Amino acid sequence: MSTVEIRKPYLLLIGDMENPVNAKTAFGLRDWAPEACMGQLRFSKNAVDLKLPEMSPREAALAGAKTLIVGIAPQGGQLPESWHPVLTQALEAGLDLAAGLHQRLRDIPVLATVARQHGRAIHDVRHSDAKFSVGNGQRRSGKRLLTVGTDCALGKKYTALALARALNERGRAADFRATGQTGILISGRGVAIDAVVADFIAGAAESLSPAAAPDHWDIIEGQGSLLHPAYAGVSLGLLHGSQPDALVLCHDPLRKTLNGFANVPVVPPQEAMPHYLAAARLTNPRVRFVGVALNTAAVEPRAAEALLARTAAETGLPCVDPIRTGVAPIVDILESL
Amino acid sequence: MSTVEIRKPYLLLIGDMENPVNAKTAFGLRDWAPEACMGQLRFSKNAVDLKLPEMSPREAALAGAKTLIVGIAPQGGQLPESWHPVLTQALEAGLDLAAGLHQRLRDIPVLATVARQHGRAIHDVRHSDAKFSVGNGQRRSGKRLLTVGTDCALGKKYTALALARALNERGRAADFRATGQTGILISGRGVAIDAVVADFIAGAAESLSPAAAPDHWDIIEGQGSLLHPAYAGVSLGLLHGSQPDALVLCHDPLRKTLNGFANVPVVPPQEAMPHYLAAARLTNPRVRFVGVALNTAAVEPRAAEALLARTAAETGLPCVDPIRTGVAPIVDILESL
Repeated sequence: MSTVEIRKPYLLLIGDMENPVNAKTAFGLRDWAPEACMGQLRFSKNAVDLKLPEMSPREAALAGAKTLIVGIAPQGGQLPESWHPVLTQALEAGLDLAAGLHQRLRDIPVLATVARQHGRAIHDVRHSDAKFSVGNGQRRSGKRLLTVGTDCALGKKYTALALARALNERGRAADFRATGQTGILISGRGVAIDAVVADFIAGAAESLSPAAAPDHWDIIEGQGSLLHPAYAGVSLGLLHGSQPDALVLCHDPLRKTLNGFANVPVVPPQEAMPHYLAAARLTNPRVRFVGVALNTAAVEPRAAEALLARTAAETGLPCVDPIRTGVAPIVDILESL
Repeated sequence: MSTVEIRKPYLLLIGDMENPVNAKTAFGLRDWAPEACMGQLRFSKNAVDLKLPEMSPREAALAGAKTLIVGIAPQGGQLPESWHPVLTQALEAGLDLAAGLHQRLRDIPVLATVARQHGRAIHDVRHSDAKFSVGNGQRRSGKRLLTVGTDCALGKKYTALALARALNERGRAADFRATGQTGILISGRGVAIDAVVADFIAGAAESLSPAAAPDHWDIIEGQGSLLHPAYAGVSLGLLHGSQPDALVLCHDPLRKTLNGFANVPVVPPQEAMPHYLAAARLTNPRVRFVGVALNTAAVEPRAAEALLARTAAETGLPCVDPIRTGVAPIVDILESL
């Protein structure tokens, strides 16, 4: 039983990446873990600029950084060989390495060798070498919220981060629990749940949010969708193992079909909810929805307001866009539970 | 994309195992793949006797055997070192090795080395090294039946084997599709679905029952239960990827709580069915239940008859015990679909 633990603070490696779309992880880290982002390392002035201090691996290590994060997605998923020397220098300077790439850094022989020589860790957070137990279904103390969705990639991580931050700002004990690579880099720990062996999905989810104080909230990043033909197994195991007291449904009102599955319609929130409740009751009979998070990024403000109002009416729940409106109405409910 | 393929016929290794309970795989092979079981290899007269010809690895290879199967579950899950020489002899005689043990045969250095020298395969069917794609949700031609359950270990494999055999006996094109280690050894192929990385459960299930002739039946061995707090993710991914036209619910009428989960009640068949149908419709809107398979092994004949009649009345479906009554009423329905 173990989850990833990555030592903060970080030096963010941008290299020569000029396309901000390929630097989403770096931006996510800067926005959600600013206290952990000590500096950036760029190879050229044209590279993406996070407005962090420019540092070499040695400078960052001297300033107290613990881990160099590969904050970009290289073309084709493979790190260019020309980047190996800077990663080697980081290990030699005393930094661990962490990346959310398809390619494993630890499969690059020179990095594996130098890491071993210097006693440094390499975290390939998209992969999971951790050993988990099968789920046991035992109730744990503490409160848990899971963000779920009508599809992939529509705001489950962002919503969970916003809820955890808002609870903390109100002085409540709350932890964001990461289940995907970007979330793991942001919080410095977690489980890449879709990389776990199938038999252990629920067990891994159980270990991700262990027993806690009765009024502590774990805010768990959801993955996939129960209504997704490829990923529902992951979503269900995560749902059962998380034993959520509260669910927030994340939805993109403009999406007509699942991302990449043109033949599978996205159902409206009120149709998705009964599926989640029926499944979640197996491990927590008191589960309830506490809100809906719409992703209205592509909609004009007036239209977004109307969408939020309509969804609130259709579901009978507070309906927010975490970016436009914040998540206060949902946090109000959590404080009453 | 690949599934295990094990070359038949087999030599079954019993060794010195005297307890029939630890030789379930060997008995399953003898009962369900008799044409593939060429002989047995025992170290003593007190060992479990399958009533097969006694053969050494060399004799079996000369007679045409292709694979030595470790047909027993050793105490503690580890093969005694004293068994290594006979496995080495089998590789040298030209046999592949296959086992469904927790311990990987290929992790035993002497076996890995000798297998490489002689170009032989080692199949650790409980583990999965196969690479799969994520599910695509595309409909495939051919018909599919999946056995599902109210719990683990109550007859899903046996029911699927009985259905496939009965269809074949009626001259219908049908294949048993194995998803667990014993089933894989029986059929010589399949996917240990619970050993697949979580992201690929549905994709692995899709590859297990590929497009086939329109009147061909794939009879797919179910795993776990949608209502199981540890394994439901596996069950759901297998359900979605299998896209079943027909479901058979397997149930043990005497089991009050899930095997090993004293706090989780087993629900009756008519309560489990709606969960399965709601989930299965995502990838096959025409899915239906075609029968119930009760495991009445622990009940007197008169009481078993009453249980079957009551369950048939409660579900409105043919209700059989595959061992006591056979599966003819369910096969009748399949022939009409």
